[in-house]
Amino acid sequence: MSFISKEVLSTSLLDRVQSPTDLKTMSEDELASLAHELRAEIISIVSETGGHLGSSLGVIELTVALHAVFDTPDDVLIWDVSHQCYPHKVLTGRRDRMRTLRKKDGLSGFTRRAESPYDPFGAAHSSTSISAGLGFAVARDLKNQSGHVVCVIGDGALTAGMAYEGLNNAGDLGKRLIVILNDNNMSISPPTGAVSNHLNALASNAPGAALKNAARSEKERSLFEHMGFSYFGPVDGHDVSGLLATLSDLKDTQTGPVLLHAVTRKGAGYSYAETSSDKYHGVSRFDIPSGKQSKTPAKAPSYTKVFAQSLIAEAEKDDTIIAITAAMPAGTGLDQFARAFPDRSFDVGIAEQHAVTFAGGLAASGMRPFCAIYSTFLQRAYDQVVHDIALQNLPVRFAIDRAGLVGADGPTHAGAFDVGYLANLPNMTVMAASDEADLVSMVATAARFDTGPIAFRYPRGEGLGVPLPENPAPLAIGKGRIIARGQQVALLSFGARLAECRKAREQLAPHGISATIADARFAKPLDTELIEELVSSHDLLVTIEEGATGGFGALVLHHLAAQGFLDGRCGVRTMTLPDSFIQQASPADMYETAGLNARQITELVRSAFSQRHHR
Amino acid sequence: MSFISKEVLSTSLLDRVQSPTDLKTMSEDELASLAHELRAEIISIVSETGGHLGSSLGVIELTVALHAVFDTPDDVLIWDVSHQCYPHKVLTGRRDRMRTLRKKDGLSGFTRRAESPYDPFGAAHSSTSISAGLGFAVARDLKNQSGHVVCVIGDGALTAGMAYEGLNNAGDLGKRLIVILNDNNMSISPPTGAVSNHLNALASNAPGAALKNAARSEKERSLFEHMGFSYFGPVDGHDVSGLLATLSDLKDTQTGPVLLHAVTRKGAGYSYAETSSDKYHGVSRFDIPSGKQSKTPAKAPSYTKVFAQSLIAEAEKDDTIIAITAAMPAGTGLDQFARAFPDRSFDVGIAEQHAVTFAGGLAASGMRPFCAIYSTFLQRAYDQVVHDIALQNLPVRFAIDRAGLVGADGPTHAGAFDVGYLANLPNMTVMAASDEADLVSMVATAARFDTGPIAFRYPRGEGLGVPLPENPAPLAIGKGRIIARGQQVALLSFGARLAECRKAREQLAPHGISATIADARFAKPLDTELIEELVSSHDLLVTIEEGATGGFGALVLHHLAAQGFLDGRCGVRTMTLPDSFIQQASPADMYETAGLNARQITELVRSAFSQRHHR
Repeated sequence: MSFISKEVLSTSLLDRVQSPTDLKTMSEDELASLAHELRAEIISIVSETGGHLGSSLGVIELTVALHAVFDTPDDVLIWDVSHQCYPHKVLTGRRDRMRTLRKKDGLSGFTRRAESPYDPFGAAHSSTSISAGLGFAVARDLKNQSGHVVCVIGDGALTAGMAYEGLNNAGDLGKRLIVILNDNNMSISPPTGAVSNHLNALASNAPGAALKNAARSEKERSLFEHMGFSYFGPVDGHDVSGLLATLSDLKDTQTGPVLLHAVTRKGAGYSYAETSSDKYHGVSRFDIPSGKQSKTPAKAPSYTKVFAQSLIAEAEKDDTIIAITAAMPAGTGLDQFARAFPDRSFDVGIAEQHAVTFAGGLAASGMRPFCAIYSTFLQRAYDQVVHDIALQNLPVRFAIDRAGLVGADGPTHAGAFDVGYLANLPNMTVMAASDEADLVSMVATAARFDTGPIAFRYPRGEGLGVPLPENPAPLAIGKGRIIARGQQVALLSFGARLAECRKAREQLAPHGISATIADARFAKPLDTELIEELVSSHDLLVTIEEGATGGFGALVLHHLAAQGFLDGRCGVRTMTLPDSFIQQASPADMYETAGLNARQITELVRSAFSQRHHR
Repeated sequence: MSFISKEVLSTSLLDRVQSPTDLKTMSEDELASLAHELRAEIISIVSETGGHLGSSLGVIELTVALHAVFDTPDDVLIWDVSHQCYPHKVLTGRRDRMRTLRKKDGLSGFTRRAESPYDPFGAAHSSTSISAGLGFAVARDLKNQSGHVVCVIGDGALTAGMAYEGLNNAGDLGKRLIVILNDNNMSISPPTGAVSNHLNALASNAPGAALKNAARSEKERSLFEHMGFSYFGPVDGHDVSGLLATLSDLKDTQTGPVLLHAVTRKGAGYSYAETSSDKYHGVSRFDIPSGKQSKTPAKAPSYTKVFAQSLIAEAEKDDTIIAITAAMPAGTGLDQFARAFPDRSFDVGIAEQHAVTFAGGLAASGMRPFCAIYSTFLQRAYDQVVHDIALQNLPVRFAIDRAGLVGADGPTHAGAFDVGYLANLPNMTVMAASDEADLVSMVATAARFDTGPIAFRYPRGEGLGVPLPENPAPLAIGKGRIIARGQQVALLSFGARLAECRKAREQLAPHGISATIADARFAKPLDTELIEELVSSHDLLVTIEEGATGGFGALVLHHLAAQGFLDGRCGVRTMTLPDSFIQQASPADMYETAGLNARQITELVRSAFSQRHHR
């Protein structure tokens, strides 16, 4: 089919589905038709909401078959990453709220325990499903319960070490566990790595009756069999009746860990998705007949793009610069770098741990590696940052995109903790860009900084539209800058809340409070001279950062305490992300919830002054 | 041989080795004899210093052969974990300092870049070598250099996802890289997992000429071949001449990634090591003829033992309690738990990521999992703690051993960062035990705490010898306690520095400074009532913790700032680990370097008061 419009298909079968039990009354033919209706419904929904279309289209038939065969939620069904959970949400009682997907107070774009009993284990980061599923399986057996545990994991997610750790333990324990490999030969981008090649070889075998796994042309054991799993497949992941038969057989006969290899097509059934290079992974609202996405025109280049272009400019001058991404070439902008410098660009798969230590090996060899990993995903490589990089003081450059709150992807993708987990490490240098011009300078700074590891963070989305330095000079390490001078309060910003500080300054002026604005630029080393000057010349110092406690503000407080500056001559407040995970909304709304917008800076300053004057 | 004494063998060959180039002049027979001398030397050294004996004895012949065949340090040789690096150190110019091993100002017990050019990439945590080695290999090729990169990795280390991520990327890139699988069928304890079973099957094939890998009985591809590596072996890892031939062949002919499977015996050549259950993994000083280790008699039970016994006591009353270790059953004390409750004890391999999310699945099923992982190794699972546990608010219990500085293992094993990386997460509860009685209470608290994740940290080594509660009651969540009352300064301790605070109190009294001592017990939630009372009734508040900045003290400061308490009525100081990695020494010496002993608490208080009075 070239496209499906809302009008083409009725939803007579889908209308009968209030919960998965309603699938039990349907014939095989009806279930196949239900899959068609479900596909059209998903396209219709995502055309309005935007979201993760391609992954969901690839598992339409699988979702129908799983819910028809297994007894969810008593049987545990875990979607790895859960980009592909939209059809699951439609069939599990959430159809009426699907058009609130990824919106404030709406359905999450991922599975979420708090949202539904059909979501037994939420996800968003990759490759957790086998580990979680094994936990459910072990608990089931300890409680002498029956029931099944099914994990659906993509081939991309299998590149992560965590999936291997789960397979290794599950294969050894021998518990009943069904892992379905949803092999669409895609990650968010085309997958990379040797395992991907192995899966392609397996998938090229003729599909056969799944339970007769002798159908494979070569009599040799797959990776999965070496790891203690029974391997079945490959099966056609878009053949409802074949899937029903296979899953029923597995359900009835399995006694240990099994892996069912289902071959699917990302974006299946929607021509524009099938032919796009990322198979319509994450889309904006779009027009169904034309496939055109209605993106709001950008007012300024994104931070991601500015980073990539700056790095390319540096790499043109310096052939030791290497770029590393962990399966996010487009998200990090490194796809551009890879086109310019294919030999110096490495996509290592969903393998942040490896990415960081690989960068460490490069740095130890005198190269200048830039490891571009989102704040939330760098959490996966925390030990490698500590043990391989900081402890050895190796000059690896960390380009940390998606710092702060990120919008529709919600709390699983928030870049909340990196300042804390990096700036408290010895040997680290940690910067945050206040705008895209600053980011250009920070890329230049990092490129020339060979004395140890250095990180710079920047937010998701568009910059401010400021002019970019043409010949960026490196920043002075550990030096902030004064943006505007005032008398009473000093607003010391670390990162992109600087713009809100400027607004707060204007809001404070009519109340007779004159504000100095400073951009710290560095959380480590701290600009102690600037900080001491600010507390010595103001009544109140307020630090502002788009990160959790224990980060920039904490380091400022530690320093002020150590130097005896917390003696009342200047009040101090730290504004950080609050002690809660903030649900999806627009970034501005999320920052409103977080209390980090100009209005709230203003309120905090006024309240602090009023406390001070009433003492 | 039943034992080797210092007198039995001459060291005439070893005496000729100033650097590995001296091995090039030796015949095969001489190299075999050198291996004998080297083994005796290692036994002699470790009998004096203590350390990681078994691993080193297992690679004596391999070390000799590697340095004879390859041209280190131009060829890059990376020892994974590097417990097994002692013979390497002896052959690479450090023989004269070997008896300073693991001592203050002595040689590190691990490879260390700062120590020698023959240590191109330091290690101590497991499974980093392939990633680092690939970085060296890629850099070599980009620089159009020749040279080899050799990584030696144990079968235990292969259970970690990071090793798989490295193999996956290396197998795909196809760079020249030699990975030597040092298969002694041991981790620190016997290894676990399906991959271990696979390796056993491979190792059971008859050793043949390594380069004719058709010697394997079944014509099927190993795990490694599925991952893009050429597989050679198994070879006898104690046959010097076989190793020389094989390694020379590989050196001359390899064009891509190869894995050489060498079968070794942990503890080889020293009978007491060969027959011990952990193959003499980490030993104290010992008597060579008898194998008896001269351990100083313990004055009090270790924290580890108290933890294990407390958990067993809780598990006797509550059959939902589960214990999980990541390949450290003895180190965490969970070997005792496993004997008592084999069905509720899980050793998942060197797989902290999986351990945590597996625990998450168990918790989501209503079980009460205790995940016992050292502070430094829990860094490996940071993202899983954030994304799978804290975000979903699942009641996983984290038992964090080796909190603070640990002594001879040095900075790679310091538990420095956990308070910061845990207590700044929403939903987390974080405790630290001030003595072993407190630890018993914390185990009881965690066992009954079902509202979210909870962590408790405790140091390496012996407790204080205090009586243990027989029927431990859960602690009030978020409540600290006053230990001693005073007037001028409040010393607020989080963790086991409490004993130093007591000493400091005595040291301060003669100076007319009367100190209140408080035990915070919780970094999160903070006992804000206690903290506010302390700052309201003293001139100075000092927080003390055996962790980095950004942890307990930072949270106290954030709170005081937010509540307007940093107004001069009470000075504040935070004592944390310093901004540096502290090299090995005795724990007391390391804390002296860190500035966290009683003397330094006293000095800081006196200096703060003197500053205050001179204003």
